[in-house]
Amino acid sequence: MNSSIQTLVTGMDTVWVVLSAAMILLMEGGFALLEAGFVRYKNSVNIIMKVFADITIGTLVFYILGFGLMYGKDTAGLIGTSGFFLGGNLSHLNLPVSLDTYWLFQAAFTIAVISIVSGAVAERINFRAYLLYILLMTGLIYPIGGHWAWGGGWLTQLGLQDFAGSAVIHALGGFSALAAALVVGPRKGKFNESGESTVALPSNLPLASVGAFLLWFGWFGFNAGSTLSATDVRIGHIALTTMLSAASGGAVTLIYTLFRYQRSDAPSVINGSLAGLVGITAGCAFVSDAAAILIGAVSGMLMMTATRWLEERRIDDPVGAFPVHAVSGAWGTIAVGLFATDKGLFYGGGFRLLGVQVLGLIALAAWGFAITWIGLKAIGKLVSVRSTEEEEEIGLDISYHGIMAADRSHEFIDQLEHLLAEDIVELRKKE
Amino acid sequence: MNSSIQTLVTGMDTVWVVLSAAMILLMEGGFALLEAGFVRYKNSVNIIMKVFADITIGTLVFYILGFGLMYGKDTAGLIGTSGFFLGGNLSHLNLPVSLDTYWLFQAAFTIAVISIVSGAVAERINFRAYLLYILLMTGLIYPIGGHWAWGGGWLTQLGLQDFAGSAVIHALGGFSALAAALVVGPRKGKFNESGESTVALPSNLPLASVGAFLLWFGWFGFNAGSTLSATDVRIGHIALTTMLSAASGGAVTLIYTLFRYQRSDAPSVINGSLAGLVGITAGCAFVSDAAAILIGAVSGMLMMTATRWLEERRIDDPVGAFPVHAVSGAWGTIAVGLFATDKGLFYGGGFRLLGVQVLGLIALAAWGFAITWIGLKAIGKLVSVRSTEEEEEIGLDISYHGIMAADRSHEFIDQLEHLLAEDIVELRKKE
Amino acid sequence: MNSSIQTLVTGMDTVWVVLSAAMILLMEGGFALLEAGFVRYKNSVNIIMKVFADITIGTLVFYILGFGLMYGKDTAGLIGTSGFFLGGNLSHLNLPVSLDTYWLFQAAFTIAVISIVSGAVAERINFRAYLLYILLMTGLIYPIGGHWAWGGGWLTQLGLQDFAGSAVIHALGGFSALAAALVVGPRKGKFNESGESTVALPSNLPLASVGAFLLWFGWFGFNAGSTLSATDVRIGHIALTTMLSAASGGAVTLIYTLFRYQRSDAPSVINGSLAGLVGITAGCAFVSDAAAILIGAVSGMLMMTATRWLEERRIDDPVGAFPVHAVSGAWGTIAVGLFATDKGLFYGGGFRLLGVQVLGLIALAAWGFAITWIGLKAIGKLVSVRSTEEEEEIGLDISYHGIMAADRSHEFIDQLEHLLAEDIVELRKKE
Repeated sequence: MNSSIQTLVTGMDTVWVVLSAAMILLMEGGFALLEAGFVRYKNSVNIIMKVFADITIGTLVFYILGFGLMYGKDTAGLIGTSGFFLGGNLSHLNLPVSLDTYWLFQAAFTIAVISIVSGAVAERINFRAYLLYILLMTGLIYPIGGHWAWGGGWLTQLGLQDFAGSAVIHALGGFSALAAALVVGPRKGKFNESGESTVALPSNLPLASVGAFLLWFGWFGFNAGSTLSATDVRIGHIALTTMLSAASGGAVTLIYTLFRYQRSDAPSVINGSLAGLVGITAGCAFVSDAAAILIGAVSGMLMMTATRWLEERRIDDPVGAFPVHAVSGAWGTIAVGLFATDKGLFYGGGFRLLGVQVLGLIALAAWGFAITWIGLKAIGKLVSVRSTEEEEEIGLDISYHGIMAADRSHEFIDQLEHLLAEDIVELRKKE
Repeated sequence: MNSSIQTLVTGMDTVWVVLSAAMILLMEGGFALLEAGFVRYKNSVNIIMKVFADITIGTLVFYILGFGLMYGKDTAGLIGTSGFFLGGNLSHLNLPVSLDTYWLFQAAFTIAVISIVSGAVAERINFRAYLLYILLMTGLIYPIGGHWAWGGGWLTQLGLQDFAGSAVIHALGGFSALAAALVVGPRKGKFNESGESTVALPSNLPLASVGAFLLWFGWFGFNAGSTLSATDVRIGHIALTTMLSAASGGAVTLIYTLFRYQRSDAPSVINGSLAGLVGITAGCAFVSDAAAILIGAVSGMLMMTATRWLEERRIDDPVGAFPVHAVSGAWGTIAVGLFATDKGLFYGGGFRLLGVQVLGLIALAAWGFAITWIGLKAIGKLVSVRSTEEEEEIGLDISYHGIMAADRSHEFIDQLEHLLAEDIVELRKKE
Repeated sequence: MNSSIQTLVTGMDTVWVVLSAAMILLMEGGFALLEAGFVRYKNSVNIIMKVFADITIGTLVFYILGFGLMYGKDTAGLIGTSGFFLGGNLSHLNLPVSLDTYWLFQAAFTIAVISIVSGAVAERINFRAYLLYILLMTGLIYPIGGHWAWGGGWLTQLGLQDFAGSAVIHALGGFSALAAALVVGPRKGKFNESGESTVALPSNLPLASVGAFLLWFGWFGFNAGSTLSATDVRIGHIALTTMLSAASGGAVTLIYTLFRYQRSDAPSVINGSLAGLVGITAGCAFVSDAAAILIGAVSGMLMMTATRWLEERRIDDPVGAFPVHAVSGAWGTIAVGLFATDKGLFYGGGFRLLGVQVLGLIALAAWGFAITWIGLKAIGKLVSVRSTEEEEEIGLDISYHGIMAADRSHEFIDQLEHLLAEDIVELRKKE
């Protein structure tokens, strides 16, 4: 290959990865809308400020510390030890694109992980405690788990197959979200003695839906962009399996809730599509079309089962972070062991790959869960992890940001007062 | 061309088509916002669930059945007969990109067609009937019409020029939308004896506007991506004509309504821009800059005329699917026969191309209209096509999805009750 | 380089620039959401109609007049004199992509400039006056200023370094916004004698936030796309510095307001991130990672200082156009003179580049400010620049567009009347 062609290849790969990274970063807009649409109105600024904290602080922490731990020179299969501040020796990476390009793509992934957790602790975590947790997740938990699987660590060496992160990103993030939801506890009024919840329904489903479409769009960057190379012949197939699995996850929840409950349940359909996307993330490059459709359908059904399980166990996860990311991510990781056309159990590959997938999944999920639990307990020594009852009652928007999401109430109150005044005047006349 | 260059070309084309497909799929987020913003609040979850049904069920139906009918091996110029489940002999396609990549792009188009119809039947179609109609549209109507024009069928053979689908997608979709609107009938209260409509104005214009911007963004993928090749020298010109026509369609409606009604009418401007986009879709690769500006302006004006015509005829099309897609799409198809720099009437090409354009348009519009009409009548034998009066009154969100778009009302009611209580207490004191 | 490789390079560059342009145009959706979220509800349709006017009318004016003045053949270092209607001699441009492609990218920039001003005059400019101002900005002010810096004019010749437009776009746009805000005057009730403002808080922060994420996404096209070449080796670094500066601008405002005011102020964090993006726009290709982080942090802090300064001076800028675009843009332009690794003061380059940067900044800011001031005064001879008190009181949505952003009020009023009726009935009973 001569030099002008090499320039072209590098250019194409760079453009492909930068555009994919931008699409993944737009998913933060998707998370913001999805979460703001699912939580109560009085906490919608707060949930979005969490997303802003994820993308701003998370980026800087990953730049300073996380990237080095994740992709630095491997030590004992456990952590990376170079590349902090994007400096030092990173020659082992052998990248098809520039280090800067590669970093941006990895940073976008990191921010997605922390954003998964933000949903599970919505409406009641103390904002300062959450800021400290961002440091932990983007500086330690994800980078170290990520090193094991993608950075040359022990899971890389064992042969874990997790193409774009059903395990590394979604299961790790989702089990961390579960730990965080447990430590923080349920929202006030969510699980009453009477069994009747006083926590209202999603505050804005149209916004949540558009959030899902932004996430769906970004997922093409997430999965297909993970090739890191524009000439990777798998790109078309990856995009296809991603689409089929998402469609299947959404379709199965739409049809199931229609026949089971006589109504297509909107939150289930939204989360079913996302579950399909999460489920195919590990295997998008490794499985057939038919397997993708099956993986998506199972992801959607498991998401609904997990949602019920959380309710029964009285675990409060306002946006469904655990069902969507942890459960579908776990299933997607295992599904590679079953359906990978190369080495999958159903393709004559025996149990070896399946075993590695299960082991990797357990390791990453347990790591995320444990360090989040311990970390939040430790953070609790410094600052309350839970908002006060009063802060929660008033709403986190007023409590932590001194503002409400919208001023519309004022206008309605004004209109009301006019109406009231008239009616009362009329009433008096009749007296 | 040596093999490494061939790898590069294929890689570039793949990346280009995958990104374009992702952009077209993001248009579903645009449709969701646009339609939710135009319909009444009580039906906004339902309209978005229709879009989710389009993208989830539509994708699977097109995978199983539609693609084979559209792009399979031609039989008698009427239908394709291979390629179901993306299998079988498709060697005749001779694609620049992988079959998977090509399929994804075509699926995105299919989902756009059915989404056009979803708007016209908003606020009163029975959700189950709509689900059955999705099967019909994505499995039969669009694939067969599409085969005629793009899949090697009789219109391909005649030489119809419809670059990205003013006829195949927008006119076919828009005339189907008209048939559906007629079969379903107008919303309760839309056309009263008194002539005064009790159906409220758009429920959320800011959201509708953002929907339009997402559609506009996606249209660059729609039109320029239809080259299917990143080295197609027409890409820049296609993007330019797309932009000019959209700007022209929006500008003409903005200025016309300003001078005619002393106010720039927001829904007209939004739909005027979209009409400009629809109008240029057939000719984006074939016409000059000046023609693009003219095509956009005429599209905007025709859209407004058609909107008035629908009102006069008492046909209820809540989001303007017929004026935007059918009428501008028809005009755009004919405009190719007039302005194509190769073979257009005004460029010395005579009437031959113009005749083919008119014929193709009539065939596709009639096909969409007829099969939709017949199909919905047939569906009506199985399940009511129209929601009940009570379902419509309560709103389709509660009726079909058991949920409201937002819980904000609760908060206002709470605030209200406080206010009321105070006023009444005060009133009593005075007594 | 042989011809097939040349075809490839041109194809790649074209696809890269077209996609970047589409991303920049999607920023109009971002502006629409950001501004609609920041202004009062009763003016939200109007602010979005301004954005539609920017993109529709602005595109056509730039096509007819602006592009020629900006990139036409240079006359005396002051204006371009060819290329109107994309015709005439433009051979001096020596473009890597087709003229059509290049034009689209430049048009997207133009529309961004005028959209900056739209925010500063929100809620009280006469819509017709604003339409005339669009002609002035997109037809004269920006193209001529742009010619000086980017079109081969006197600032190009002096060596001004403004990679993607901190000065040309943001400072020029931001100082024009300041002049417009001064000419139009503050909103009624914004600065009362008592010092207490009756102008409400942002009407919808979740929407404003999503607007910011769309802008952030588009900025990767804005900055990295400005290479105009997909094989430019700086693309990865540009995307990295863009990300770091945005993160830094947002993080510093989040943490500063948290410790200073005991609450992370949402509007500050949103605008802090945007300030970081504006600040790095000039230097994204020229500065180091560390400098990018510093530039972003300073941008965020300056934005907050400038916001306070405006309040003290009783200048009303509803969305913060001056603090975000003018001040951070000015700082970003100067920062190139300090931090450019080639010729920057801190890299041993002496004061030469810094001097040029300061001179260019002053020239462009003064040009934008002066012509906007004079232009609006002249427009004021034709039509009132300011809306009437009544129009402002009722809201510009009703006044200029005959419509409200949403019909939700009707539903609440209905619910209210029911409630009222019941309470009053009850009250009567007790009587």
